[in-house]
Amino acid sequence: MHKICVIEGDGIGKEVVPATIQVLEATGLPFEFVYAEAGDEVYKRTGKALPEETIEIALDCDAVLFGAAGETAADVIVKLRHILDTYANVRPVKAYKGVKCLRPDIDYVIVRENTEGLYKGIEAEIDEGVTIATRVITEKACERIFRFAFNLARERKKMGKEGKVTCAHKANVLKLTDGLFKRVFYKVAEEYDDIKAEDYYIDAMNMYIITKPQTFDVVVTSNLFGDILSDGAAGTVGGLGLAPSANIGDEHGLFEPVHGSAPDIAGKKIANPTATILSAVLMLRYLGEYEAADRVEKALEEVLALGLTTPDLGGNLNTFEMAEEVAKRVRE
Amino acid sequence: MHKICVIEGDGIGKEVVPATIQVLEATGLPFEFVYAEAGDEVYKRTGKALPEETIEIALDCDAVLFGAAGETAADVIVKLRHILDTYANVRPVKAYKGVKCLRPDIDYVIVRENTEGLYKGIEAEIDEGVTIATRVITEKACERIFRFAFNLARERKKMGKEGKVTCAHKANVLKLTDGLFKRVFYKVAEEYDDIKAEDYYIDAMNMYIITKPQTFDVVVTSNLFGDILSDGAAGTVGGLGLAPSANIGDEHGLFEPVHGSAPDIAGKKIANPTATILSAVLMLRYLGEYEAADRVEKALEEVLALGLTTPDLGGNLNTFEMAEEVAKRVRE
Ligand SMILES: CC(C)[C@H](C(=O)O)[C@@H](O)C(=O)O
Ligand SMILES: CC(C)[C@H](C(=O)O)[C@@H](O)C(=O)O
Repeated sequence: MHKICVIEGDGIGKEVVPATIQVLEATGLPFEFVYAEAGDEVYKRTGKALPEETIEIALDCDAVLFGAAGETAADVIVKLRHILDTYANVRPVKAYKGVKCLRPDIDYVIVRENTEGLYKGIEAEIDEGVTIATRVITEKACERIFRFAFNLARERKKMGKEGKVTCAHKANVLKLTDGLFKRVFYKVAEEYDDIKAEDYYIDAMNMYIITKPQTFDVVVTSNLFGDILSDGAAGTVGGLGLAPSANIGDEHGLFEPVHGSAPDIAGKKIANPTATILSAVLMLRYLGEYEAADRVEKALEEVLALGLTTPDLGGNLNTFEMAEEVAKRVRE
Repeated sequence: MHKICVIEGDGIGKEVVPATIQVLEATGLPFEFVYAEAGDEVYKRTGKALPEETIEIALDCDAVLFGAAGETAADVIVKLRHILDTYANVRPVKAYKGVKCLRPDIDYVIVRENTEGLYKGIEAEIDEGVTIATRVITEKACERIFRFAFNLARERKKMGKEGKVTCAHKANVLKLTDGLFKRVFYKVAEEYDDIKAEDYYIDAMNMYIITKPQTFDVVVTSNLFGDILSDGAAGTVGGLGLAPSANIGDEHGLFEPVHGSAPDIAGKKIANPTATILSAVLMLRYLGEYEAADRVEKALEEVLALGLTTPDLGGNLNTFEMAEEVAKRVRE
């Protein structure tokens, strides 16, 4: 029995998550779904965007499936990542047939450090109109994120990928912090002589995801750089409607679409469930359910290729109808 | 007489700058070129990447035309921007016919704050393996960069553009620093009721430059965000070989291609001079030479459309031959 904490959250979270549950149930695996609240709505009602009870459920379950939060997103999700110590934010960037992509051969993963950098929340107004934020980079956090990236590259190499990790940083300007980041990268790289290692400045990297995305395998970077880079990367393979993510730690896993609550389309049942279904695929792999994960991904691939999609991808199905097309194929 | 400080610098700087001078001379305008040194080579010879003499010449001239620096780039260019107090880094993003672009209708300008953010160089190792960098955002710097952006949008509106400024920030996470950035943006926007104002999170913005670049007019953002965003944007309109920039202050102007010294292709005369020629176009406008600026840009457009280019754009000319094709048309 897999015990899953389900947080629909706000806006389209209330649509894409139930649609994804539909697909998960189609796998026939034994799930127990424990629902918990977070986001703007519960904040308005109780004054807390991330209630204690939700935290307890999240800590207690085998994995968390998260939809989206509205205005309170940063408070909810950054805090949850922190509490669960999910230090690796894994964001696959993959071209699917039937989706408008820059190239058909894009298939890499961005690994974003998830615990420090500018996300520490250390800010101050040191004089009127003079504010500062502190970017923190530690050797310890660098080591574990780089090991994670190299291990992932090893896994992918077994599946026929190149076996390469690309580190993105700004060590020419951030000489100490990113100097450390880059140094630790090459130190860890030495432990993995079966995996190639290369590095680029983050600005160049942000161009290369457009001009040579097919050359990447695993890309690793710091927190905010990963935030920015992964949205750009999503743009090259069809946009946020298709971008999944996994937040992985030694004890916990949290799975969420990269998109937000999209208040403009919420309630219309036109939200694309793909990003959340793909996040569930990552969750299945995390839970060790490889066969089911492959089955869901293959079903989704077929549905995308056939154009059985929501309007944003040119189809005319609603959120639940598209999910049902996937579920149907998973059941078969 | 326009007195121009010319810094070729390292690598392909030694090719693209002379090629651009060729084009500038074709305008028939009265220039005095004063050559100065900066970068790796002078560093190796003298121990200084940016000699005092170069700084004096740069301060004394009407404008600076800069090529590229190698390993020492950050020390040279960040310092020069600082010394000249060129607080606005202006980076046009424009699709040219004959160049592989995401869309033919891309035409906007990124205005990057050039004096603070994470470029202040305030870093420390506060414990073994624990490093910090300080991101500085001040009301004063925000105000002047936003005024610059809105004034630019007004100029562009006169030329038929939409008249819109888009502010990119991360105020949901950087609540104090980017909270200030965003607040000052809308405060300044009130002074410009003829110009539209909108804002996005920097991560979303990095996707929108791929998925809806045609909707932008002037984009304004902080220093490092602008660094990352502008390389991505360059990728959507043919890459760094075509990306020019202007560093503008109240007293000085410094003009440079966004690309670096490209040691891999240096000395082969295959470097694309377009980015530097377009930087010279920005310099001509800065000097008030609008007619000559238009003439050079039109000549370059024609050369690109005819495929009379360096190999990176599919042509078979070398750096100087391509520049000569432009110069010829400028002379006509
Ligand atoms: C909502 C926001 C705090 C979050 C982030 O910055 O990490 C989001 O942009 C993401 O990428 O998951
Ligand atoms: C060379 C480097 C210091 C510089 C920067 O980061 O500003 C460059 O990337 C740029 O964009 O001009």
